[in-house]
Amino acid sequence: MGKMKFSLDNSIEILERTPDTLISLLDNISQDWTSNNEGGQTWTVFDVIGHLIHGEKTDWVIRTELILSSNVEKHFTPFDRFAQFDSSKGKSLKQLLHEFKKLRTSNIKKLRKLNIGSQDLNKTGIHPTFGEVNLSQLLSTWVAHDLDHISQIARIMAKQYKEEVGPWVEFLKILRQE
Amino acid sequence: MGKMKFSLDNSIEILERTPDTLISLLDNISQDWTSNNEGGQTWTVFDVIGHLIHGEKTDWVIRTELILSSNVEKHFTPFDRFAQFDSSKGKSLKQLLHEFKKLRTSNIKKLRKLNIGSQDLNKTGIHPTFGEVNLSQLLSTWVAHDLDHISQIARIMAKQYKEEVGPWVEFLKILRQE
Repeated sequence: MGKMKFSLDNSIEILERTPDTLISLLDNISQDWTSNNEGGQTWTVFDVIGHLIHGEKTDWVIRTELILSSNVEKHFTPFDRFAQFDSSKGKSLKQLLHEFKKLRTSNIKKLRKLNIGSQDLNKTGIHPTFGEVNLSQLLSTWVAHDLDHISQIARIMAKQYKEEVGPWVEFLKILRQE
Repeated sequence: MGKMKFSLDNSIEILERTPDTLISLLDNISQDWTSNNEGGQTWTVFDVIGHLIHGEKTDWVIRTELILSSNVEKHFTPFDRFAQFDSSKGKSLKQLLHEFKKLRTSNIKKLRKLNIGSQDLNKTGIHPTFGEVNLSQLLSTWVAHDLDHISQIARIMAKQYKEEVGPWVEFLKILRQE
């Protein structure tokens, strides 16, 4: 496992597939699947899509540009994990899905235009928690973060049937995961 | 959480979306993402799609038909969790994805034709491990099983970048899950 080394092309393969993957899974689906959470303070599917939008607006490409800039000051602005609770208000899931797709498409365009070379991947910025991180770590995390939230969305939805599966709960590990 | 009661319509919403969700995520992607596993005896993405195909051929609809049949003998045939290691041999991921979509489309057609009513949902069959289970539990499990494997596929792929994300591994729970 973990056999892959970072590759910009392989990374973009995932980044450009995420919006259509989410649209295929979620567009026009009953709200029962997308407005319930996993209990307590956990997120709904609707919350997760808002979170992905906030990342497109404030995180991944902004931090990439800062790392590659001639700025001496390289501190990342801390990411707001709760911004979507305000910014998604009054919107439909369909609106969010298409907003995410639009922002992602534009960000991939920006990413390609930066013509990132192998030396650039070692350039660094300062993360609020971790300190110095480099560009290949940031871009790898963008990819893994997409996949993490795809996985989370499928889990949130599966858990809506946790009682309904009866004894099969024993075979479905996802229903016992957090 | 787990607020949803079983509904055939809500279930079909997921079942009919799974093939296109997987095609959006996986079609034409580099093999690096789909032929590596999570270490040890774990499955690759390629293995998981073969497993989903085997379910379409031998499990969900077959068991549904058995439950609804007039047969006195209601024991399910045990499911072979390793069948795909033979049956997927020599095939491409693209072939498997489209084979899965074709089988699923046909199975949803069969499911609709059964005109399952609310009394049918309480009818039972005999599971090799759990003993008596009813139709609504079986169909709920079909749905949760799809979502479980979507979640697993995203996790297998994310783990390919486990080393590459550097310190962010701390924020990405998926990279530490099994």
